[in-house]
Amino acid sequence: MNKVGIIGQGHVGATTSLVMAQRGKVGKIVIVDKNNAKAKSEQADLQDQIALLSTDTEIEVQDYNAEQWSKLKDLDIIIFCPGKISALLEHGGERDYELNLTSQMVHEIAPKIKASGFSGIIVTITNPCDVIARMLQEEIGVKTSQVIGTGTGLETARMHHAVGNATGHNYHDIQGYVLGEHGDKMFPAWSTVQVASQAINHFQLDLDKLAEDITDGGYTIFNGKHFTNNGIATWVNLIVEAILNDARIAMPVSAYDPNLKLYIGQVAIVRQTGIDEIVDLALNDHEQKAYQEAAQAIQANYNKVH
Amino acid sequence: MNKVGIIGQGHVGATTSLVMAQRGKVGKIVIVDKNNAKAKSEQADLQDQIALLSTDTEIEVQDYNAEQWSKLKDLDIIIFCPGKISALLEHGGERDYELNLTSQMVHEIAPKIKASGFSGIIVTITNPCDVIARMLQEEIGVKTSQVIGTGTGLETARMHHAVGNATGHNYHDIQGYVLGEHGDKMFPAWSTVQVASQAINHFQLDLDKLAEDITDGGYTIFNGKHFTNNGIATWVNLIVEAILNDARIAMPVSAYDPNLKLYIGQVAIVRQTGIDEIVDLALNDHEQKAYQEAAQAIQANYNKVH
Amino acid sequence: MNKVGIIGQGHVGATTSLVMAQRGKVGKIVIVDKNNAKAKSEQADLQDQIALLSTDTEIEVQDYNAEQWSKLKDLDIIIFCPGKISALLEHGGERDYELNLTSQMVHEIAPKIKASGFSGIIVTITNPCDVIARMLQEEIGVKTSQVIGTGTGLETARMHHAVGNATGHNYHDIQGYVLGEHGDKMFPAWSTVQVASQAINHFQLDLDKLAEDITDGGYTIFNGKHFTNNGIATWVNLIVEAILNDARIAMPVSAYDPNLKLYIGQVAIVRQTGIDEIVDLALNDHEQKAYQEAAQAIQANYNKVH
Amino acid sequence: MNKVGIIGQGHVGATTSLVMAQRGKVGKIVIVDKNNAKAKSEQADLQDQIALLSTDTEIEVQDYNAEQWSKLKDLDIIIFCPGKISALLEHGGERDYELNLTSQMVHEIAPKIKASGFSGIIVTITNPCDVIARMLQEEIGVKTSQVIGTGTGLETARMHHAVGNATGHNYHDIQGYVLGEHGDKMFPAWSTVQVASQAINHFQLDLDKLAEDITDGGYTIFNGKHFTNNGIATWVNLIVEAILNDARIAMPVSAYDPNLKLYIGQVAIVRQTGIDEIVDLALNDHEQKAYQEAAQAIQANYNKVH
Repeated sequence: MNKVGIIGQGHVGATTSLVMAQRGKVGKIVIVDKNNAKAKSEQADLQDQIALLSTDTEIEVQDYNAEQWSKLKDLDIIIFCPGKISALLEHGGERDYELNLTSQMVHEIAPKIKASGFSGIIVTITNPCDVIARMLQEEIGVKTSQVIGTGTGLETARMHHAVGNATGHNYHDIQGYVLGEHGDKMFPAWSTVQVASQAINHFQLDLDKLAEDITDGGYTIFNGKHFTNNGIATWVNLIVEAILNDARIAMPVSAYDPNLKLYIGQVAIVRQTGIDEIVDLALNDHEQKAYQEAAQAIQANYNKVH
Repeated sequence: MNKVGIIGQGHVGATTSLVMAQRGKVGKIVIVDKNNAKAKSEQADLQDQIALLSTDTEIEVQDYNAEQWSKLKDLDIIIFCPGKISALLEHGGERDYELNLTSQMVHEIAPKIKASGFSGIIVTITNPCDVIARMLQEEIGVKTSQVIGTGTGLETARMHHAVGNATGHNYHDIQGYVLGEHGDKMFPAWSTVQVASQAINHFQLDLDKLAEDITDGGYTIFNGKHFTNNGIATWVNLIVEAILNDARIAMPVSAYDPNLKLYIGQVAIVRQTGIDEIVDLALNDHEQKAYQEAAQAIQANYNKVH
Repeated sequence: MNKVGIIGQGHVGATTSLVMAQRGKVGKIVIVDKNNAKAKSEQADLQDQIALLSTDTEIEVQDYNAEQWSKLKDLDIIIFCPGKISALLEHGGERDYELNLTSQMVHEIAPKIKASGFSGIIVTITNPCDVIARMLQEEIGVKTSQVIGTGTGLETARMHHAVGNATGHNYHDIQGYVLGEHGDKMFPAWSTVQVASQAINHFQLDLDKLAEDITDGGYTIFNGKHFTNNGIATWVNLIVEAILNDARIAMPVSAYDPNLKLYIGQVAIVRQTGIDEIVDLALNDHEQKAYQEAAQAIQANYNKVH
Repeated sequence: MNKVGIIGQGHVGATTSLVMAQRGKVGKIVIVDKNNAKAKSEQADLQDQIALLSTDTEIEVQDYNAEQWSKLKDLDIIIFCPGKISALLEHGGERDYELNLTSQMVHEIAPKIKASGFSGIIVTITNPCDVIARMLQEEIGVKTSQVIGTGTGLETARMHHAVGNATGHNYHDIQGYVLGEHGDKMFPAWSTVQVASQAINHFQLDLDKLAEDITDGGYTIFNGKHFTNNGIATWVNLIVEAILNDARIAMPVSAYDPNLKLYIGQVAIVRQTGIDEIVDLALNDHEQKAYQEAAQAIQANYNKVH
């Protein structure tokens, strides 16, 4: 049986379990939230949902205040997505505030994951994604291959959509990746982008404008609904399914770069054991520079809390 | 192509479209919200989601302020789910406040639906569900069979879950219905309930306690997350699919009772043309009384705004 | 990861893996056939299929002639479905011929399953289903709870369809079971049948005629296409998913009856460990007699090969 | 409601409807076969299948001998897949024999489609695919955009699998197309192929050997099971869903080439109205030559029956 834990039941965590139950590929979901009543509430809503579906998924709640988080032990995957969007909004979405908040969460939760005896794969969404991935790996003490950040998957989806719109193509016709920091220092690696197997420069496009659209896309969502959940919940489910089925598939995730010694959005092979290897894309000079700048931004953020 | 509109992009409306995109059976979704920025935000988040899925669903926004809601005209189904949970919460969830609020929304939106030329089926979620269903039918001026309220479908799912728990059975083994008002005057019609084809009185159960659990289940969810979305969004998708595929299937929905001349939660046959007929369940005296009380409560609410 | 083996790649086995790949809930399928070239052919066709889907399922072939069937060891479930429909057709579908043929297959394959170290659940389709289930349990030497025959699931689906047709209801509105022998001695347990929670005797139906329709339904299919595969492949996938997700759900399968000391079609709770318990339906005298007659027919067939 | 007809209930037609019912996106399927008993048999088996699923699909049979095929009139799509694999096998799979057989079927069936008043899209599988597509368009008298052959979709899937195997990648990481004749004159357009956004010549591969593997893959399947069905049934379902949802997506199908005045495997945009436009891939000289040779082979076959 496939078994997944979800730590954090904010908009993203709750939507992740909702999508997981719809897709019906996981037999047990264990949910955890600092607000136990919130976790029980989500459990009850998920059970209403599942009673209406033809699939069976058991939903369990791990008591946040328990001495030992024993329900995590046998899970295949833990999704880490605590956050506090309401507190963040009061601070105008200020990124340093978020970093302080979420790095504290890592300090609080990582020891509990470690003590649980969990030995599977950790997929992390909490922002700043690349910094939190590194902190989780260090503080839980697992192999670097066992931690995967959701990275630039959402930006990649958004790029496919933007390029599709600009070329009159379906977004599923678009290939290629956005890389770098999950944040302002992300960049579309245009050298990797094709439209139905045609190179992007085959088309008359304003690539800088498109890159802005990708960034703006995130802000449009955030400004309108004050959080984003559909896209990220779907993306994390794809990562989860790639792990569970040992797919060995290339995905734009936040993975450990052994040269830079940090987690950063890049294309990596995802399988049952986590990250199998990094795909060595032939980035051009411009892209390599953007990648280095992203790494510097991530490192700078990491330094703020170390 | 299957085409569905969703009016109202609060938690329920937004989750309904998210689930619809996951299930992949609808080719076009038109979303509408009084807050146009919110609608555009949901559109963008849905597009991110769909770019990650293998299915294709087009998401369009109908401008709320347009003279004519022309994008509704050719839809098969409109889901009506405006609400204002934040305003409602400030008033302590008080039901009369909600009734005043949502009946105003009907007055505002029904004429726009009518003027659009839409001739399909309306599925309505907004509370108080049974009253709003009646108002929509009257104010849009369609046949009574063309309006379906989500009714007691969610309570029925919750009953399946509660009875499953109490008997050690999977909830999919439970048959039977909760009927009456979507609200405090709902009642489990125990005479209709079976557990893997065994009558419920075969088991030693405290049925009054179970009925309370079903009511409490809703409050557990509401108190923990301040709204419910998973269950209701899934339920409305099942109704939508039954209509689209002309399923002629029995569902516990809010349908027009020609004797009582109001909408109330009962078991009705759902098909492409809406409600086909009412299933004449052999309710016992106790249940028939409960049904009449539910009808009185619904009528009393209706009278408050007429 | 969910892992399932399928022994026998005739129409039923091949369709079972096709449906399994479509549903995308199993990460690895190991296929086996006495004709290794047939197994490799199905593997290649399945891989073409999967390359077109968005899910990942690995397909492996276990060499039939290998000393040890080592690829079975770690599987969660083995589906047993060898048969030789072409040989059977040449003998006019004669049942004793089939029994001799398939009981030989058990003698040949059971030792290989046993030697593989497999310790999961066996789901068996091969006819006569109830006899073969018992033989597999005895010859592999597993607990009786670890073997599940597909039993009267298909007849139950057919009954739902026939009753739906006769009452003008969707087949999903029909509850209740067909029980007994998977063969001529099956019987609809009408006392368990409801139509949208109404007892079957609520309707003016010729139940004997309906019972004939259910039997005839199977022959219509067999005579037209010379095998049946859609229904049975779907049914076995439902059993597989109930096991994988520990659903604890009531299903009309062939399970061990400890009183009669044989496998027979009855309603049993299916979960990760196989059959959890038998549902003690309150059958009427007529149905109890039919059940005993079914048991006698099954025992008589068993005696022919022992 | 989405409505699809399937003419021909051999292995491919029957599996196409099986897969369609599993995917649950079509509300009504109308099946037709020269052998009416076969069609009724498939209908019954499909109904057993659907009774077990949570979706609703109505299955109707169009009587082959009816004066007018009236059930085709309102369909969105007709899938054309008659064939006679048993007769073909007796003639050693000889291609001219097949051409004579299937071109006769076009002469017989095209007038019936025309007379039915059907005005949707025709998707054709029957071999030789490219010739039959042209004949159907001419004999039914629809626009060239309304006929789509399954073309080189299956070979493309097979190429993805072969390149995945050769590079250690998941087949979903492979992009690019096989083009030309659905038959011996197909060719992988290597200039269009990427592996996780890296050009194929980035890898040390024996491309000629890989091209052989793709051809051999088809024969492996055919020799082992004497037909292929999984891959093609899945592929045709993807084309159907692209049409129904107006996906405007690039697919390697057999589409009309206005210069060559014939149908041939190329990359075309598929949408609700059929083929929207041809994607003008920048094929290299070698590939352009192969394309011309494929066209000549297709024309030569066409000439044999005109």
